[in-house]
Amino acid sequence: MPGLLERYRAYLPLTPQTPLLSLSEGSTPLISAPRLSAHLGVDLHLKYEGLNPTGSFKDRGMVVAVAKAAEAGADTVICASTGNTSAAAAAYASRAGLKCIVLIPDGNIALGKLAQAVAYGAQIVAVRGNFDEALGLVREISAERPIALVNSVNPHRLQGQKTAAFEIVDELGAAPDILALPVGNAGNISAYWMGFREYRSAGQTDTLPRMWGFQASGAAPLARGLDRVEQPETLATAIRIGSPASAHLARAAVQESGGLFDHVSDDEIMAAYHLVAREGVFCEPASAAPVAGLLKLHAEGRLPSGQRVVAVLTGNGLKDPGSAMRAVQAPAAVDATMDAVLASLA
Amino acid sequence: MPGLLERYRAYLPLTPQTPLLSLSEGSTPLISAPRLSAHLGVDLHLKYEGLNPTGSFKDRGMVVAVAKAAEAGADTVICASTGNTSAAAAAYASRAGLKCIVLIPDGNIALGKLAQAVAYGAQIVAVRGNFDEALGLVREISAERPIALVNSVNPHRLQGQKTAAFEIVDELGAAPDILALPVGNAGNISAYWMGFREYRSAGQTDTLPRMWGFQASGAAPLARGLDRVEQPETLATAIRIGSPASAHLARAAVQESGGLFDHVSDDEIMAAYHLVAREGVFCEPASAAPVAGLLKLHAEGRLPSGQRVVAVLTGNGLKDPGSAMRAVQAPAAVDATMDAVLASLA
Repeated sequence: MPGLLERYRAYLPLTPQTPLLSLSEGSTPLISAPRLSAHLGVDLHLKYEGLNPTGSFKDRGMVVAVAKAAEAGADTVICASTGNTSAAAAAYASRAGLKCIVLIPDGNIALGKLAQAVAYGAQIVAVRGNFDEALGLVREISAERPIALVNSVNPHRLQGQKTAAFEIVDELGAAPDILALPVGNAGNISAYWMGFREYRSAGQTDTLPRMWGFQASGAAPLARGLDRVEQPETLATAIRIGSPASAHLARAAVQESGGLFDHVSDDEIMAAYHLVAREGVFCEPASAAPVAGLLKLHAEGRLPSGQRVVAVLTGNGLKDPGSAMRAVQAPAAVDATMDAVLASLA
Repeated sequence: MPGLLERYRAYLPLTPQTPLLSLSEGSTPLISAPRLSAHLGVDLHLKYEGLNPTGSFKDRGMVVAVAKAAEAGADTVICASTGNTSAAAAAYASRAGLKCIVLIPDGNIALGKLAQAVAYGAQIVAVRGNFDEALGLVREISAERPIALVNSVNPHRLQGQKTAAFEIVDELGAAPDILALPVGNAGNISAYWMGFREYRSAGQTDTLPRMWGFQASGAAPLARGLDRVEQPETLATAIRIGSPASAHLARAAVQESGGLFDHVSDDEIMAAYHLVAREGVFCEPASAAPVAGLLKLHAEGRLPSGQRVVAVLTGNGLKDPGSAMRAVQAPAAVDATMDAVLASLA
């Protein structure tokens, strides 16, 4: 499969001068979920974004943002991030021959989470301040220097992310009835809605999905109708965001599509995470939020049966193996005999 | 893309009764490596097997092995493994509705490495013994119970793994001049060679590649012409094997193709690992062995220029983030001002 810039060139803000940057991002599988479908009474498919090159949906937006930065003559990109964004930025910058600077808030350094960015050759700077201060700094630096900002305020990010909607329509032959996805910074739900609408305008689908956005209960400003949550808390770190940057666009997507926001507890997220794994798909905890949401709405009698539903799994479970191990104890050793092994399984 | 059983059905040992098990494995990208190509004087492509569903090439063989186990009426599969095999076995067993038992040697339990198998729902049994004893036990149990053995002694594993050779030919339009890959248990080099030969018999390629197998210097029985290495040692854990199960087939592949075995040090492996990441591709240390081998042979004047070379990257770097972080120190924090950040980068 060609990369996204080549596959969806006609729908992206490219010029003849834009380098066709690619790490074979996109074209991720849409995997049926037979057991969850039977339980929920719907036809559920999982859009497994964890099989993007750096393991998350962020690659879709970053390939566009970095290609446009290269086109504009930048020799460096910069972002504030401690997670998936930094991995994607570092990978595409390295591929394009650009430098990459990642600012992280001091005191909140999970070195393991930066393993990818480091491997791809990013320069990591820890600043004495919180995430908002780090983001303010990268905005300031990008305004004053020939350094391209690739945080989600960069509009090319959503342009790239909308391609996932195209792929779903291309594979199903039409838009699903419901598109369920995790909501943190709220960029992705906005990008999908943009993608579905553009594809309808282009005659690729007659219908549009209802957009169902699920937040973690401890970080649910949109689902609770708040402007912001001051101290967001959830083990689904990828959606632990109190003040979504794209809140306005996300509210429009839900309203225009006749969709909804709801929130799910960490326990509900982890239960869904294990059910998704039993379908054979290993995702990040945040990715399980839409499945948790579907289970919750089903239990409340609010999930219409017979619908075709796509749940977006935004990241690979390998990004956060600790979550898989948290509930596990080291197995007690048994003697190296068949009887002992079989007895331990009884 | 359909899964492997559907895509390459005509080349696999399937019957009308074989369930078309799939997690959308295979169809992994072949990514050009422009900087390494320029340095080496060849046209190098990286076959990035880390984008398989569980993050390694093992999915190719396991989808066949588990489908055949289900067809044969097994309700359980079993393997001895502490790494990529257990993840693949657990995922496909869960998908097929089978139970999965993973035996691991006690005292050698890296819980993190088992995160995936646990998430997919495998039962883990630690036995008081070494890996060979664990393998002996799973052979014994599978012989006496209706439990299917899915370790690499299962011949369906190589049948599935050969499909990667098909994909390379399908994408390039012909076999490459050289196929370079890491060699541990030696099953994969044997499977690729089988795949290339079958595809030539089917008229899909006129030529065959030379097979270049690279071992880690501390675990290099084939490269050193030994029957076995008693205490294999390398940080590339996926190829830390002293007595390769498929040594005979691998020797035949190298001899028949006019290829070679060689070995590379851990330092050479880690240098290559970082160079591969700078191309934008994050792989396991073991996956960097063939690139390290190409660099070594180039330095020795033994890599002919102008060749089309494919290096197989067998696993995703996210399987072993510790290797990326080993050389990294926590960055010193700087004040949250533009001047301080820019000064720290100087």
